[in-house]
Amino acid sequence: MRFYTEYLTFETRKHREYINITPEVESALRKSEIQDGMILVSAMHITAGVWVNDAEDGLLADIDAWLEKLAPFREDYRHHRTGETNGDSHLKSLLVHHEVVVPVTKSKLDFGPWQQVYYAEFDGQRAKRVIIKAMGE
Amino acid sequence: MRFYTEYLTFETRKHREYINITPEVESALRKSEIQDGMILVSAMHITAGVWVNDAEDGLLADIDAWLEKLAPFREDYRHHRTGETNGDSHLKSLLVHHEVVVPVTKSKLDFGPWQQVYYAEFDGQRAKRVIIKAMGE
Amino acid sequence: MRFYTEYLTFETRKHREYINITPEVESALRKSEIQDGMILVSAMHITAGVWVNDAEDGLLADIDAWLEKLAPFREDYRHHRTGETNGDSHLKSLLVHHEVVVPVTKSKLDFGPWQQVYYAEFDGQRAKRVIIKAMGE
Repeated sequence: MRFYTEYLTFETRKHREYINITPEVESALRKSEIQDGMILVSAMHITAGVWVNDAEDGLLADIDAWLEKLAPFREDYRHHRTGETNGDSHLKSLLVHHEVVVPVTKSKLDFGPWQQVYYAEFDGQRAKRVIIKAMGE
Repeated sequence: MRFYTEYLTFETRKHREYINITPEVESALRKSEIQDGMILVSAMHITAGVWVNDAEDGLLADIDAWLEKLAPFREDYRHHRTGETNGDSHLKSLLVHHEVVVPVTKSKLDFGPWQQVYYAEFDGQRAKRVIIKAMGE
Repeated sequence: MRFYTEYLTFETRKHREYINITPEVESALRKSEIQDGMILVSAMHITAGVWVNDAEDGLLADIDAWLEKLAPFREDYRHHRTGETNGDSHLKSLLVHHEVVVPVTKSKLDFGPWQQVYYAEFDGQRAKRVIIKAMGE
């Protein structure tokens, strides 16, 4: 069995930002030399997410507006009594999830035609990490 | 280690449809001859989902109505400027997620009494694929 | 390869309750003697969830209120025609998901500074189970 672990660090310019990390996942897969197995891609923070969906700017804007509607910024979250102001970022993270598991077959991400891995930053402008862990043979 | 990969193809008659694929996952597990490990079941499209929940028709109708409420069809998604009309299908996919990882113990899906694997089609009436990848010993 | 499987049982006092199970996951990891790999933590019921987020009581109260807003208790779910009254518990489970996969590196949960594993009970006051399955070397 082979195991390969890599950490990505992002410091976004905007508070919320969506970054296509498919090239980084593919690069980690090449370094792992795994032909068959799975890759876990997981945010290491509780105000960020990882998803698989389309690389289309209009859709990303739709997703952003939709997340703000379902999990809006509000002054009065109880979490803010700790001094934080990012209650909505936690809820957005729960909504889209913080991780995906990507299948690997014949040394490739075994994706359909439009699938791309995204890092979703919901409380940026500071260093945040993602772990990529590949496991297989 | 054993690895086993299988692809399912669905072409639903309806635009949205929910299909119990537990028998297909169990069949893949048998073919894999894995006794202990995990099975990834993942939609290969960005307008479909995979979940584990109950096989009860009333609940499936409730889920469908609930998804339409939280991620409704709308004319004015920015994504539709590409010519697509399925912005809501992407949002529904993000909401329920596109994959599950199922534990395998003693050659069985290690599920509780009511757990079933569902393929959720949010933009059907054309061929769509699901990957099943089993990994274990 | 090593495989290690453990089952937790919860019988909450309240209908909805959120339990930090990170110590139980760490204990299972130690028993597994796995240094590198992945741990699947998955609810075995269709009215419960597992997530990774912050251990902060204000946030947990925010999450509870938010889930009740997005997936409210209602009398008139079609699922209730079966005699059940927990339609909302199923929807809450779908929203937050029933499982997480946690990376393991150097015999530790490879988490960021605030990540904790939670069991989310949405229909408690009876015995419910969670499976922890570790896989690695």
